Amino acid sequence: MSSPILKQSLKLALIQLSTTSSKSTNLSHARTKVLEAAKQGAKLVVLPECFNSPYGTKYFSKYAEVLMPKGSKDSEPTKEQSPTFHALRDMAKEAGVWIVGGSIPEREESPGSDSNTGEGKGEEDGTKEKLYNTSLSFSPSGDLVCTHRKIHLFDIDIPGKIRFKESEVLSPGNKISVFDMPEYGKVAVAICYDIRFPELATIAARRGAFLLLYPGAFNLTTGALHWELQGRARAMDNQVFVGLCSPARDMEAEYHAWGHSMVVDPNAEVLGQLEEKEDILVRELEAGRIEEVRKGIPLYTQRRFDVYPDVSQDAKVGTEL
Amino acid sequence: MSSPILKQSLKLALIQLSTTSSKSTNLSHARTKVLEAAKQGAKLVVLPECFNSPYGTKYFSKYAEVLMPKGSKDSEPTKEQSPTFHALRDMAKEAGVWIVGGSIPEREESPGSDSNTGEGKGEEDGTKEKLYNTSLSFSPSGDLVCTHRKIHLFDIDIPGKIRFKESEVLSPGNKISVFDMPEYGKVAVAICYDIRFPELATIAARRGAFLLLYPGAFNLTTGALHWELQGRARAMDNQVFVGLCSPARDMEAEYHAWGHSMVVDPNAEVLGQLEEKEDILVRELEAGRIEEVRKGIPLYTQRRFDVYPDVSQDAKVGTEL
Repeated sequence: MSSPILKQSLKLALIQLSTTSSKSTNLSHARTKVLEAAKQGAKLVVLPECFNSPYGTKYFSKYAEVLMPKGSKDSEPTKEQSPTFHALRDMAKEAGVWIVGGSIPEREESPGSDSNTGEGKGEEDGTKEKLYNTSLSFSPSGDLVCTHRKIHLFDIDIPGKIRFKESEVLSPGNKISVFDMPEYGKVAVAICYDIRFPELATIAARRGAFLLLYPGAFNLTTGALHWELQGRARAMDNQVFVGLCSPARDMEAEYHAWGHSMVVDPNAEVLGQLEEKEDILVRELEAGRIEEVRKGIPLYTQRRFDVYPDVSQDAKVGTEL
Repeated sequence: MSSPILKQSLKLALIQLSTTSSKSTNLSHARTKVLEAAKQGAKLVVLPECFNSPYGTKYFSKYAEVLMPKGSKDSEPTKEQSPTFHALRDMAKEAGVWIVGGSIPEREESPGSDSNTGEGKGEEDGTKEKLYNTSLSFSPSGDLVCTHRKIHLFDIDIPGKIRFKESEVLSPGNKISVFDMPEYGKVAVAICYDIRFPELATIAARRGAFLLLYPGAFNLTTGALHWELQGRARAMDNQVFVGLCSPARDMEAEYHAWGHSMVVDPNAEVLGQLEEKEDILVRELEAGRIEEVRKGIPLYTQRRFDVYPDVSQDAKVGTEL
């Protein structure tokens, strides 16, 4: 008998947060909601994409924080460099929960630059600084357990509906992110548009993840078309739990998020889905459910890697940048 | 400007056929329906899985036909060896359409055996004969253009709902099937449970298919859970048309097919879906639609094969066994 994929049942909370243009308001509001989720018994709490700022290419630079001072992987940012890093760590410790901190705009400094200058894009040669859409996850003891930079930038152009080009200001991440919660199991984190690339889900699930989390801000066009379908398809094809966590919809904001944060079970049934306004969705992920689904429809032993390759071999996966 | 994926608009017909235990009745009934579909303007006509026989492990051997006499790839079966091969060819020519002939049980003889003996499984060593779930496709001029043997056998066991083990009597195919309709473009064929393995769809689409066809007999359990979700997910992730073609439901039969044959567009919208009874679904697949969808959400240029491998490289794809 192999060890369970989800070792014990886990209460997951998705916080469909309302955000404002004030970062400090967003951070203190997020704290309130995380504590509320913890009070409801959640042990893993998820915040939405860009939870500390408005979503939009013109805002990324203004709100961006330095997470790796001078490009070093070893030192932590100061509170001045990244108030959000410290706010998330404090929330995790105060609430005693695992936190997947949605995402925030990140500024990466290359070793030669000064950490307190400039808010715009880097020099023309692109070496001075880069911006990313980045997710930070913390353990209940306040350890940074995963950093994910959005791999697939949201560049779409549906005439008359929506045009958005993250790549005008952001750079992409270069690895798939799976981290371990020792008492529960492995969790994958990817951001919004990443969900449209099924390889991430496939690879994470084949590497043992019980849950795929996507902080994401779909909009009124793509949300209506594909939000639920994406969540259910990833769950069905990989027989794992899926959580999609959106910001609340704000029709006064420039970008209108779809909302509808949802939890999907390994058989693709929607365990719960919010409306568009601010709310918290708490659902228990049952230990044994993944094994039950996989026993019924045993995809995991039926794949034909003699006919097509196993995409989970030779992929870049990790927790650190 | 690259050449269009679908060169001109194409009327597709899915025939949700009622089948009986009489093969000759099934074949003549299929002919009637194919002619009816052609009269509605269809240029590509699809029949369901096991359209010439009841569906069930105990029936496969009884209804199986020899498609490759004595294991040769070069010679055709006689009318006695495969009445269905000839019936499909005749239908395609008579109706002047491309036909994807759902699937039929196939008996493969190894070179040493006599083609007219034995209906059971082969000898204990498995070398004498094998049974497959096989799809034959013909051009309007009667050429056999594709043979697909179901790669993933339907072995599931959902307690209290359904248990089915094709592998008790069938052997699996070993390649992905994509064929060319020169005036239109490339079409992929896979059978039923094959749809649960997204690699087939991914590979076919990346190799240029505009349409994924799945003759398939989901049941009342898996149909309600996943039939539409499978069809829409394959369309969405690959931005191609998808057709699912089921037998009509017969509650007197041992196996209760889901029905609900459907055509899905490259943006995952359901263009049409039947109920459970016998019927024909005809839908026009619009030239230019795939390009429009891919221009809006340009997944095809955004995939990150530096982070994960391209599963379409190094896969086994072909039209012949």
